[in-house]
Amino acid sequence: MSTFKITNKDKSTNARTGILKTKSGTIETPFFMPVATKAAVKYLSSKDLKEIKADAIISNTFVLHLRPGEKTIKKLKGIKKYMNYHGINVTDSGGFQMYSPSLYIKSDAKGVWFKNPFSGSKLHITPEKDMEIQLDIGSDIAMCLDTMPLIEHSKKAIEKACDQTFDWALRCKKHHDKKNKQKQLLFGICQGGIHKDLRKKSAQQISSIDFDGLAIGGLALGEEKNDELKMVKTTKSVYPENKPCYLMGEGNPKMILEAVALGCDMFDSRFPTQNARRGTLFTTKGKLRIFNAKYKTDNNPIDKNCNCKVCKNYSRAYIRNLLIDQEPMGRHLASYHNLYYLQNLMKQTQEAIKKGKFKQLLNKIKKIYSWAKLLETIIGNKIVASP
Amino acid sequence: MSTFKITNKDKSTNARTGILKTKSGTIETPFFMPVATKAAVKYLSSKDLKEIKADAIISNTFVLHLRPGEKTIKKLKGIKKYMNYHGINVTDSGGFQMYSPSLYIKSDAKGVWFKNPFSGSKLHITPEKDMEIQLDIGSDIAMCLDTMPLIEHSKKAIEKACDQTFDWALRCKKHHDKKNKQKQLLFGICQGGIHKDLRKKSAQQISSIDFDGLAIGGLALGEEKNDELKMVKTTKSVYPENKPCYLMGEGNPKMILEAVALGCDMFDSRFPTQNARRGTLFTTKGKLRIFNAKYKTDNNPIDKNCNCKVCKNYSRAYIRNLLIDQEPMGRHLASYHNLYYLQNLMKQTQEAIKKGKFKQLLNKIKKIYSWAKLLETIIGNKIVASP
Repeated sequence: MSTFKITNKDKSTNARTGILKTKSGTIETPFFMPVATKAAVKYLSSKDLKEIKADAIISNTFVLHLRPGEKTIKKLKGIKKYMNYHGINVTDSGGFQMYSPSLYIKSDAKGVWFKNPFSGSKLHITPEKDMEIQLDIGSDIAMCLDTMPLIEHSKKAIEKACDQTFDWALRCKKHHDKKNKQKQLLFGICQGGIHKDLRKKSAQQISSIDFDGLAIGGLALGEEKNDELKMVKTTKSVYPENKPCYLMGEGNPKMILEAVALGCDMFDSRFPTQNARRGTLFTTKGKLRIFNAKYKTDNNPIDKNCNCKVCKNYSRAYIRNLLIDQEPMGRHLASYHNLYYLQNLMKQTQEAIKKGKFKQLLNKIKKIYSWAKLLETIIGNKIVASP
Repeated sequence: MSTFKITNKDKSTNARTGILKTKSGTIETPFFMPVATKAAVKYLSSKDLKEIKADAIISNTFVLHLRPGEKTIKKLKGIKKYMNYHGINVTDSGGFQMYSPSLYIKSDAKGVWFKNPFSGSKLHITPEKDMEIQLDIGSDIAMCLDTMPLIEHSKKAIEKACDQTFDWALRCKKHHDKKNKQKQLLFGICQGGIHKDLRKKSAQQISSIDFDGLAIGGLALGEEKNDELKMVKTTKSVYPENKPCYLMGEGNPKMILEAVALGCDMFDSRFPTQNARRGTLFTTKGKLRIFNAKYKTDNNPIDKNCNCKVCKNYSRAYIRNLLIDQEPMGRHLASYHNLYYLQNLMKQTQEAIKKGKFKQLLNKIKKIYSWAKLLETIIGNKIVASP
């Protein structure tokens, strides 16, 4: 069996289900990965992740390199054993940390210079070094070290970043092929900001290398939603159909489904947990702003239609108060619910694709998460508006 | 059946087991209550509390009065439903908050003046008001509003506080008798610092009122351990045997067992969870300082002899790193383990009393938590010293 196998195709969109094979087992696509930067999802244990059927998570190579260090994780028999996590571990390369002013120093053709925030010492992360760290960590899927430009950078700077990303992708692949003795998968990442021509070029460059999967980087960073979807569409027109496609950083339910419709298979984001901590909860009726005063004495669950342990056992009023009081349990309950919602939505998405009902689900979610609907939940009145 | 029934007495100490009856059901003594000041134990859900068999918890009347307010909790059908907690809810009165400089203004014979930290407004909490708040909260056991002196206060000031506490206890009892329509129990609290004569007098005053239970307040606040035990002994020589005795604020395993030996039945403290967050873990071999460098790559559980979900699934190395990284899950895992340990120790204590083996258990725990043993865990060598 090859690494990725498409199992069902939707007729009216480019959505598909598939099976991705890793050394830790297989996983059905499309799926969403909660973020476990430091080898722990914020406020959720690996037992919680099993309960909500989060069968893949993503950690951060650079952050784990800093602490506890990849050699420590290797000695502890790899990240899977370290976290006692049942699912598939993905590691992001750490390219994203180039936008952390407290960590980033500079980068050149050879690699990136970072500052170790604990010791103050300088660290040189090259593509080769990054691959070795990820192999030591022992994740199931490693990501190439890329150079991520910001949307607001000049087109010239973005093009330069794309070329750098391509050069590093070649070096990552070469080094990974040489050192990989554990069937770790390696994914390439394209860049290009919101420039169609650069996206196309970068996607062509990255897909010219025989990676196990192809990612779309540098999006879901605050650009217009339409620009993001255009870029996904452009990239997907280049990326080969038979490779799993991972849209990095997207965690908005509506946007995930829009990207699934364009043929994306994998997603990750801190969006659901961050929103939870800030009091925005996902429900089958759209976003619920729990800090709204009307929930102060509301004994109802977050979502009556939700089967998660939070909705079965706790009231809006209780969760609201714990969040206001910054009690860790408020954050746990809200995060658990939001991730449960999203994992459940991904399962529904898989089922809908299989049953030829994806378009219906997509339209439902688009409507639920429309601006009109959001406004309705905020002001508490129904608004007549097109979805 | 009366409120409290002694079921077994130890022959060589004053330890006893008993059954305490509340409106939410019965609970076997001696028991320990995790602290849920704001209606949530830090980093543990009510589901976790059920798992570790924490069948009673204690919240804070004054803090809940501030937020969400007792009327809100009443509207939400009481604290038990509010928290979705299976066990017995106790509420401390808030007298302790007189030592919070950000909250306390002054007190007089009528009551205590507090500052509302959210609105800046002044709040007058009288014994009568305190009773009404606790009745609205709907806890199973209410505590009298007391005036807690500090150990370092002058003997004269402590005596004055004792008299004030007695006067307020009479007022609490009177008002509670009048308003209590829900079979909420009410406990009195004695004070007296570490003065034997004042403790005796206060204990006589408090036990002259027909409370459902009698507490020992103003201890476990940093005084010498021997002074604490002397005061417990003095108080117990006055308190009638047939009333449950609650030593407030004690959470040290060794001290709890010493107090059980003197006839105490109930305990509460943030000690286990606070220690957990700070990296001190309770084990069957004594305290384990998880930040010790030797645990960095230690794949063993916190305690091989512990059956908790943390010890069954996670390594010292993982918990250590999460705590160092201030990851919420590190705090959850460590807190869960420490509370599991203590709940388990209380069950062992009950069993030991029933089987006439309490003295053996007491000696074992005294040895495990001796200074010599603690030093041994810190420096990693065996020290020959008397326990």
